[in-house]
Amino acid sequence: MNWLYAFDLFGVAVFAITGALMAGRKSMDLFGVLVIAIITALGGGTLRDVILDNHPVSWIGNDWYILVAVVAAVGTVIWVRFTRPIHETGLLVADAFGLAVFTVIGTQVALQHDVPVSAAVIMGVMTGVAGGVMRDIVCNEIPLIFHKEIYATACIVGSLVYILLRYLDMPPNLDIAIAILTVLSIRLAAIRWHLALPRFHLLDRERPPADDQ
Amino acid sequence: MNWLYAFDLFGVAVFAITGALMAGRKSMDLFGVLVIAIITALGGGTLRDVILDNHPVSWIGNDWYILVAVVAAVGTVIWVRFTRPIHETGLLVADAFGLAVFTVIGTQVALQHDVPVSAAVIMGVMTGVAGGVMRDIVCNEIPLIFHKEIYATACIVGSLVYILLRYLDMPPNLDIAIAILTVLSIRLAAIRWHLALPRFHLLDRERPPADDQ
Amino acid sequence: MNWLYAFDLFGVAVFAITGALMAGRKSMDLFGVLVIAIITALGGGTLRDVILDNHPVSWIGNDWYILVAVVAAVGTVIWVRFTRPIHETGLLVADAFGLAVFTVIGTQVALQHDVPVSAAVIMGVMTGVAGGVMRDIVCNEIPLIFHKEIYATACIVGSLVYILLRYLDMPPNLDIAIAILTVLSIRLAAIRWHLALPRFHLLDRERPPADDQ
Repeated sequence: MNWLYAFDLFGVAVFAITGALMAGRKSMDLFGVLVIAIITALGGGTLRDVILDNHPVSWIGNDWYILVAVVAAVGTVIWVRFTRPIHETGLLVADAFGLAVFTVIGTQVALQHDVPVSAAVIMGVMTGVAGGVMRDIVCNEIPLIFHKEIYATACIVGSLVYILLRYLDMPPNLDIAIAILTVLSIRLAAIRWHLALPRFHLLDRERPPADDQ
Repeated sequence: MNWLYAFDLFGVAVFAITGALMAGRKSMDLFGVLVIAIITALGGGTLRDVILDNHPVSWIGNDWYILVAVVAAVGTVIWVRFTRPIHETGLLVADAFGLAVFTVIGTQVALQHDVPVSAAVIMGVMTGVAGGVMRDIVCNEIPLIFHKEIYATACIVGSLVYILLRYLDMPPNLDIAIAILTVLSIRLAAIRWHLALPRFHLLDRERPPADDQ
Repeated sequence: MNWLYAFDLFGVAVFAITGALMAGRKSMDLFGVLVIAIITALGGGTLRDVILDNHPVSWIGNDWYILVAVVAAVGTVIWVRFTRPIHETGLLVADAFGLAVFTVIGTQVALQHDVPVSAAVIMGVMTGVAGGVMRDIVCNEIPLIFHKEIYATACIVGSLVYILLRYLDMPPNLDIAIAILTVLSIRLAAIRWHLALPRFHLLDRERPPADDQ
């Protein structure tokens, strides 16, 4: 399944770029940029593999993952320094694609370990979003995904679609493609029309408004 | 040992509620509420199982854990929105009970892997408190347990009591019950009389008071 | 290889001291001091072992690690309270030595698992720096190593030197000693002359200066 592997490496590159940009916003040094890029790109899959006991984890069994993340991070620094800023919309679309690929691969790996459906969905979502959450934690931010437009919800739906199609015995490449397109469409629609889940404001009900942050 | 399993699920529900409430205080969306609830409820046990190489981790082998955490989180949002705020004292007592159960189960799992006493105590404490620490880190707070009334100290004592009773060859249910009651009593006493450990203020000694935050 | 084990325990003690001091700066209670000390001292090696599937992790197979970390943390609190502040330069030099030892041990453990060179270097760096990063995250700080003088870069160079010397079939103790001295020299030179990597300031290029933090 070579095209899925190529998509996977593309996702690693895109996530590494978002990590490098966040590190730049925090004025980190070049080492910090590399670390944040690697954590963002490979953190989700590593967490999934460690919890599933799926060894060796991806970047230990195959050194292309690290290489792609490092090249993407260094390339980002050079690009931003010597040419123009990153094209924001292009990056958002690429990020949505990486998210879709990571989610489906994560669900697939989990199903190969015969886990219940609830755990397979969590593993899919974790593979898609945990790297970005770790990036935000190391950079001392509240993780973005809990605040902005529908993001992880797209992963949940895509992961469920993939599990359903597997039960229906669809040919293996078609179920992956449909699930990836599902995540991608939901995420792009959320970006285009600023769709967001309702928030849960606790302070509004428990304290007078003057105490609100 | 069905009652211990029931207690364990009760602890998962209570910890998920505290996670959902913290997410509400941070105005997270519904997905954020679910994630923080699951991390709080299952993070400690997952970390313990990964470090002990005890696979499959609890919620992968059995999907009741995820289900209970999700239902508790969604129930909290509905409850707070449509009825009254959560009863704070009730929640503190329930949290103390969950803490006690998690600590004893964590110590028990560690002892089944033939670890030294020091590691068994750490595993017990970790199972009890790490979920709450992860909740606080993801929400960008300094973890509460390092500041407030005696919390983890109750876990250390309860874990040691359990290990001691096991050496004394007490019947298996009795040692668990005594250890749970030990953690619960210490924690409830700490809440009732605001007992706290002495703090270690470094700035007081190293810099003039004007520099103090 | 008894001297390497002694160096390892020395590194655990030094890292526990830096953790206890950070906990003191955050006015944590005595339990918080112990936890931060243990996380700082043993977090990097634990993360490495979990990702490599190298079980039991160090402090589970041998309870000297926990004991040394606890004694160092408690000793720090007593020392700072009843005598003078810690000697800062002495601590920096000791920390550089601990960093060097942890990096080389981490690289060595990774090579014993037949990982690619890229992963072995990452494991070496992770063993050296991840404990400090976890300390900073739990204490709600942006990790220091991404901002201050050359730190992790010394680990990368030392790890590469060790891998090279292993390929050259040098006697096992000599390659370790040379690699430790490499990390130590780079780090001490960086402290002495305030050497730092160039930073990656993203805001400078993307927003007007008035928006800068």
